[in-house]
Amino acid sequence: MGGRVFERFTLEVFDKFKDECGVFGVYNHPEAANITYLGLYSLQHRGQESAGIVSSNRSLSSHKGMGLVADVFSEESLAKLPGEKAIGHVRYSTTGASHIKNAQPFLVEYSMGELAVAHNGNLVNAGRLKDELEAYGSIFQSNMDTEVIVHLIATSKESKLLDRLTGALKRVQGAYSLVLLSENKLIAARDPHGFRPLQLGRLKDSWVIASETCAFDLIEAEFVRDIEPGEVLVIDDKGLTSHKPFEEAPYTPCIFEFVYFARPDSTIFGTNVYEARIRFGRELAKEHPVDGDIVISVPDSGGPAAVGYAEASGIPFQMGMVRNHYVGRTFIEPKDSIRHFGVKVKLNPIRDLVKGKRVIVVDDSIVRGTTSRKIIKMLRNAGAKEVHMRISSPPTVSPCYYGIDTPDAEELIGAKMSVSEINEFITSDTLGYLSFEGMYRAVSGAGSSFCDACFTGRYPVSVSERRAPQLALFG
Amino acid sequence: MGGRVFERFTLEVFDKFKDECGVFGVYNHPEAANITYLGLYSLQHRGQESAGIVSSNRSLSSHKGMGLVADVFSEESLAKLPGEKAIGHVRYSTTGASHIKNAQPFLVEYSMGELAVAHNGNLVNAGRLKDELEAYGSIFQSNMDTEVIVHLIATSKESKLLDRLTGALKRVQGAYSLVLLSENKLIAARDPHGFRPLQLGRLKDSWVIASETCAFDLIEAEFVRDIEPGEVLVIDDKGLTSHKPFEEAPYTPCIFEFVYFARPDSTIFGTNVYEARIRFGRELAKEHPVDGDIVISVPDSGGPAAVGYAEASGIPFQMGMVRNHYVGRTFIEPKDSIRHFGVKVKLNPIRDLVKGKRVIVVDDSIVRGTTSRKIIKMLRNAGAKEVHMRISSPPTVSPCYYGIDTPDAEELIGAKMSVSEINEFITSDTLGYLSFEGMYRAVSGAGSSFCDACFTGRYPVSVSERRAPQLALFG
Amino acid sequence: MGGRVFERFTLEVFDKFKDECGVFGVYNHPEAANITYLGLYSLQHRGQESAGIVSSNRSLSSHKGMGLVADVFSEESLAKLPGEKAIGHVRYSTTGASHIKNAQPFLVEYSMGELAVAHNGNLVNAGRLKDELEAYGSIFQSNMDTEVIVHLIATSKESKLLDRLTGALKRVQGAYSLVLLSENKLIAARDPHGFRPLQLGRLKDSWVIASETCAFDLIEAEFVRDIEPGEVLVIDDKGLTSHKPFEEAPYTPCIFEFVYFARPDSTIFGTNVYEARIRFGRELAKEHPVDGDIVISVPDSGGPAAVGYAEASGIPFQMGMVRNHYVGRTFIEPKDSIRHFGVKVKLNPIRDLVKGKRVIVVDDSIVRGTTSRKIIKMLRNAGAKEVHMRISSPPTVSPCYYGIDTPDAEELIGAKMSVSEINEFITSDTLGYLSFEGMYRAVSGAGSSFCDACFTGRYPVSVSERRAPQLALFG
Amino acid sequence: MGGRVFERFTLEVFDKFKDECGVFGVYNHPEAANITYLGLYSLQHRGQESAGIVSSNRSLSSHKGMGLVADVFSEESLAKLPGEKAIGHVRYSTTGASHIKNAQPFLVEYSMGELAVAHNGNLVNAGRLKDELEAYGSIFQSNMDTEVIVHLIATSKESKLLDRLTGALKRVQGAYSLVLLSENKLIAARDPHGFRPLQLGRLKDSWVIASETCAFDLIEAEFVRDIEPGEVLVIDDKGLTSHKPFEEAPYTPCIFEFVYFARPDSTIFGTNVYEARIRFGRELAKEHPVDGDIVISVPDSGGPAAVGYAEASGIPFQMGMVRNHYVGRTFIEPKDSIRHFGVKVKLNPIRDLVKGKRVIVVDDSIVRGTTSRKIIKMLRNAGAKEVHMRISSPPTVSPCYYGIDTPDAEELIGAKMSVSEINEFITSDTLGYLSFEGMYRAVSGAGSSFCDACFTGRYPVSVSERRAPQLALFG
Repeated sequence: MGGRVFERFTLEVFDKFKDECGVFGVYNHPEAANITYLGLYSLQHRGQESAGIVSSNRSLSSHKGMGLVADVFSEESLAKLPGEKAIGHVRYSTTGASHIKNAQPFLVEYSMGELAVAHNGNLVNAGRLKDELEAYGSIFQSNMDTEVIVHLIATSKESKLLDRLTGALKRVQGAYSLVLLSENKLIAARDPHGFRPLQLGRLKDSWVIASETCAFDLIEAEFVRDIEPGEVLVIDDKGLTSHKPFEEAPYTPCIFEFVYFARPDSTIFGTNVYEARIRFGRELAKEHPVDGDIVISVPDSGGPAAVGYAEASGIPFQMGMVRNHYVGRTFIEPKDSIRHFGVKVKLNPIRDLVKGKRVIVVDDSIVRGTTSRKIIKMLRNAGAKEVHMRISSPPTVSPCYYGIDTPDAEELIGAKMSVSEINEFITSDTLGYLSFEGMYRAVSGAGSSFCDACFTGRYPVSVSERRAPQLALFG
Repeated sequence: MGGRVFERFTLEVFDKFKDECGVFGVYNHPEAANITYLGLYSLQHRGQESAGIVSSNRSLSSHKGMGLVADVFSEESLAKLPGEKAIGHVRYSTTGASHIKNAQPFLVEYSMGELAVAHNGNLVNAGRLKDELEAYGSIFQSNMDTEVIVHLIATSKESKLLDRLTGALKRVQGAYSLVLLSENKLIAARDPHGFRPLQLGRLKDSWVIASETCAFDLIEAEFVRDIEPGEVLVIDDKGLTSHKPFEEAPYTPCIFEFVYFARPDSTIFGTNVYEARIRFGRELAKEHPVDGDIVISVPDSGGPAAVGYAEASGIPFQMGMVRNHYVGRTFIEPKDSIRHFGVKVKLNPIRDLVKGKRVIVVDDSIVRGTTSRKIIKMLRNAGAKEVHMRISSPPTVSPCYYGIDTPDAEELIGAKMSVSEINEFITSDTLGYLSFEGMYRAVSGAGSSFCDACFTGRYPVSVSERRAPQLALFG
Repeated sequence: MGGRVFERFTLEVFDKFKDECGVFGVYNHPEAANITYLGLYSLQHRGQESAGIVSSNRSLSSHKGMGLVADVFSEESLAKLPGEKAIGHVRYSTTGASHIKNAQPFLVEYSMGELAVAHNGNLVNAGRLKDELEAYGSIFQSNMDTEVIVHLIATSKESKLLDRLTGALKRVQGAYSLVLLSENKLIAARDPHGFRPLQLGRLKDSWVIASETCAFDLIEAEFVRDIEPGEVLVIDDKGLTSHKPFEEAPYTPCIFEFVYFARPDSTIFGTNVYEARIRFGRELAKEHPVDGDIVISVPDSGGPAAVGYAEASGIPFQMGMVRNHYVGRTFIEPKDSIRHFGVKVKLNPIRDLVKGKRVIVVDDSIVRGTTSRKIIKMLRNAGAKEVHMRISSPPTVSPCYYGIDTPDAEELIGAKMSVSEINEFITSDTLGYLSFEGMYRAVSGAGSSFCDACFTGRYPVSVSERRAPQLALFG
Repeated sequence: MGGRVFERFTLEVFDKFKDECGVFGVYNHPEAANITYLGLYSLQHRGQESAGIVSSNRSLSSHKGMGLVADVFSEESLAKLPGEKAIGHVRYSTTGASHIKNAQPFLVEYSMGELAVAHNGNLVNAGRLKDELEAYGSIFQSNMDTEVIVHLIATSKESKLLDRLTGALKRVQGAYSLVLLSENKLIAARDPHGFRPLQLGRLKDSWVIASETCAFDLIEAEFVRDIEPGEVLVIDDKGLTSHKPFEEAPYTPCIFEFVYFARPDSTIFGTNVYEARIRFGRELAKEHPVDGDIVISVPDSGGPAAVGYAEASGIPFQMGMVRNHYVGRTFIEPKDSIRHFGVKVKLNPIRDLVKGKRVIVVDDSIVRGTTSRKIIKMLRNAGAKEVHMRISSPPTVSPCYYGIDTPDAEELIGAKMSVSEINEFITSDTLGYLSFEGMYRAVSGAGSSFCDACFTGRYPVSVSERRAPQLALFG
């Protein structure tokens, strides 16, 4: 999940897939903006670039900013968000398109009044729709594919918001978990494949919507159920009404949420994330056993899998690396003689622990391989006799087009090298990836399916467009 | 070690003993200020209130500020600290005396030129010395006892800095691990009881001094040895000269550094902190076994002891609570209906994991008991069938006068209640504290001794002064 | 022109008509953004709320922020505005709609690519057009009437930008002095009545456009000519092309620019502002002579008229009040006992000068009368024997709908009281307003005409719409 | 007096003598800190680098910061300064020693309790006293000579604060206008020569002390009298007691306060500043008449003298240059092609006014001559036929050692060139300086005397010390 990290380190040093977005909504709570603030705070791991809340008190009020939830909002700004309905959004961190104009919720005025939208996911046909909308006179002010949805709603001929929305969603392809707020309605919508999580909870007389259940825990809301794939759920003064306006599609939730993104205390797609990771570790131990003295993890994401590995292998788990969480917004990497701090600024092995040991290191995935190589070097410098790398997912070989910011295939080490070549590159004594089947065994009840495109290149929704505009547009 | 936490939560919610200070020094490095920046960054867990560096390039340059190391310093401010010698300081966080004038290093001009001092510890006779110095005409600009040391140096009749310093240190009583910087000397000094750690390292042609070895790891320096109790080590162009000017005293390093303060990857007083904590956990399991399903820890400080407990008891260790590290500088606790978030803002149990389980929770200490009570309530709300609290140190019964900011005895639950009363107060099913003997077994080689005043009330250096000024003065 | 003033003082204390906007553009200069920065800096008196620049280097780059030009832009932000073409905007200060989303230039993507617009003026039919555009599916993200123009361009069926723009401008009514920037064109347009100034200059091989000539002076550009009323001037790699696509209308430039808004070193509508003000003062002296000892002005706007009054009356001019220019962003008005600082925080009379004197005070206008009353009280407290108020324009009786933020008629003292009632209200010994004819004599060559609606209620473009939306929309 | 100016422009572009300091004190007012805030705000022209207030409510509270009064203080910081007594300080702007540690009031704890001191002036023997104090064990934490006074008080053997203070002041030489605050006393002291102004006022039941009377006007206090040269005035619960403990010395107040520093609405040394400047202008017109069409001034400091010149010469005064007051904290001077904006960023002549005219420009002084040369060039570029420079003081030939920051003699154009050489350097048609006698005629009642060292090199208090430390120490 990570501490407060200067983005350069997230990107270059830690070399993880970047987080995606988190959405939240609440209906009928006297402190709707405050509840949304807390909800976003719990979803902070899904996006650290920007945060925003729109509340409705007849008219809509908005506050957005770059940075962490706790920094973007103050007592003053929350006080300026009146009303008993609100939605919020946290956005992932990236370098290029990092701009306040891309912060969400996206708030507009159109013929039916005001409308705010918060989106987690990515539309694969946004570029084509944008061209079309512009041809009919729409103007675009952001780089977000979310704006496409709003234009489709605005240009609809339908007279009801629900019909406009379902009409719009019938035209878009890809992944979306949406919350929308009008003067008097809160709407949640999830694409027919159900790529990203979206969940319904209850807090006394209020309804809440969140990307993950961990947001319910903080506000002491009760988890009710998943928003279903293809469901449009309207909450207004008549209560909840559920709609299923789309053609049915295979349910393919994102398996990578279990591997890395979601918080371990969340339960998504019916499965607790922590337990899935423990099982990844157990399967990994069965598939790739090795003689070792201790099992350690790369904090924080590799932790549960390492515990599962230790448990299944009988080799003791140890907290073998310390993570420095005190990284400020702008850690300076000193120049000249003291170069290449990289991973060392954030992680330090416990020398007395690893010295002379055969160390099994569990991590959730390898992106470019450079971080793994540095970690292994660090462990050897600390005296480890052997370093065995174990990865709690299969090699990642293909980019995601459904809402996760991944490097191009040519940067993914799993797409370019065999496992033995990777082992050589990262300088581990042995390297073992969890098999595709092992991963599925860990998360599956009978007959369940997932989107596993990042591991297989098999995309549930075809990606025919030119790639650049898509990348520029997801959010 | 903790993430980036709004101080209210450190103090009230988490209710831990507050961190003390960290010091660092480097001699003969072309990037002395940059190295010191990195050293302080590694020592950040010892103080988050303020940070400062003084470098020497014939004359001394200073930069200090309130906040974290990475926020106080920028490329520009580091560039204004030229020279091949530098010292630095991080200071703990507290509410009252939180003021830039108390940030260190303390830099003055006096008859022999410029002098900068950074101090970890607390002098028990600072108030009396201050009265005396003022009577002879000294003026005080800070609330720090460190200023007393500087005045004693300045008013000395000796002609050499070393003699002035040893004369000054002969007059002060209490705990000090000091680094001093003059135009051409770096001096390290540790009080005769050796309360706080202070260590010597080597980085190619440079000497480095740090509170803990974890600072050496980041800069890739080699640990050489502890600065000995009662040692004054002078580093100048003639090399290292060690002095032992004080009467010998019993060596009583602070045992609480092992329990809570020091980073687990540090080795202090000859023992690795992580391994000490593992052994605390093992002893605890032997002394207080209980039938349980899982062993979890209160992150992050209880982690290694929980691993040790699990190992010795054979009950599986699990990462049962998730800590939110994304707390910004100013988390707002919403008012009115949503009250008392307290611990919940930072910790969340994994419901699916603890549900129906008999949970053994390991923490390092209990201060007021309110945090423990909240954690236990949270676990029961998440479905835990039983909650057994295990503490990896004996009850804390007395305040520290040697550099750790502790509440008064009347606020320490260990001073007011028996273990069974505490068990009732925090609502655990059972509660077990590590015994005094068990703690000693875990950290001792043959015949070693420690300052254990916080557990026993037996103070190695008597505290005769009125209390208030002492508290106001430690740093 | 004013110093750096906390907005509360501009609005409540000084009680002046609020400034409008300023626009700037440059074509074919290697440092287009830097030149625009300087141009905006010279136009700062036309708007202090927000500032923005968009440059074109094939694609358009934007930087906008709340505050003064010199605070919004840094070397870094200017460096991120590459290209040889740029436009910029400064916006007036107001409380309600003060929001970054209303900062200009307004930058969008539409079917023909990117387009940025900066606008000075106000459209009187924006509300109606907005309703219509929304009915056809347009969405609005700001409160600015400028967005209406952009939507009209985007929804046009024409294939050339110029045709789309002229089509759009044929539909809007009211005041506009516009600069537009596309990937390869800089366009300037002024409404057929020519309400607001807009001027063309030349800087070596570059063309520049600015609201006032004072912007040319700073960058050492040469004034070429006014953009004519109803002119659309296109600058691209083929050079300048002038278009006059609109029906001719009476030329009615804003006479209030001479009275208060424009900088005295600017020449607008063919007349130097300073000289116009000197002549206002001379006419005023002829119309409202009085026995007095000294003529003083309310700094800074009343200065030139006071000099003219003194010259024509033979009574010596003195700098009788000192203005404190050191007002920071957030001057705090202390509470309780020290109340109602108001005008005193900014102005102080020279006691020794006014003591025992018959003082003639020249100001440019009276809005609510409260400021004048305070100034007169201050002068009497300082010992003035008599205070004669002279106003260098007629009473303001009607709000402006063409780009100046004025209070409603019911707040305008000139609309509610006769001159003798105003004299009584502000407690002057005598009060004289410049006559309508006197004002015209001062600024007119033969046969010239102006928009004088604020003095007469005669609006050159009829204002049929409901008022609220208009006010919400002008910029 | 100047707008909000980036210091580079004050120093290099405008090339004026830098402002000195301003002090303020209040006794027995329920809102002492708020009153001091307002007082400092009125004295802002005397120092823009830093501002500070110390209040007494039994113990002393302090808030200081870099920047303008209105930026340093907020409602929160003022609320933390309780008590009915307070003193404050504004400090001039300079580059090198610009550091928070040099901000005043200087607050210390010493044997008699707490003491705060605010100082305007400069001690010429501070370096020697500092050496002596250090030899006896004092430590120095700032570069301010004010710290010397505090050490002398602290090391005194006297038992009363008054005796300690007078003892200390007997040892220092040079210029000081001081306010001191202890737990229960407010003390004002002025050196025997009375170099800098210091004045007593009354606000109902409160006493106030300020550098200039303009501070009394804002808070509606009544001017009572000057603190006399050599007077130490103690205000406590027994009322006012005046002491004259020093040997009498010639009264030599600073004549440059009239020429440039003081605000025109202040009355200092018994004479109104504005009226003195008017008379400077009249004398100048008599001494250096010239055929001209208009008289203009360099805003803002040359204004009154220009009015006086116009009056005496019969040539009309005009506001011929516009000053841009909207300079933010960090105006960026664009690089490369657009160079050397210098004076132009702040001043612009009114082209239509000066075109073809013989222009007489009045300024208060010339420092290096570069600014004057640029102004003359600007006027010629705007079309002036002739430019006649008139300076309302004699040539400045010597640095000030009594509290004004002046360049070294080698940088003063008046010290290096004859008037005709200066005329040639600055490219004026003619140049006339006010004569020494003319200046005296303008400010003198019968038999008055002044410190005129900057014009004559005759120093009332001899300056025997090495120069460098003095410069480093004044404040």
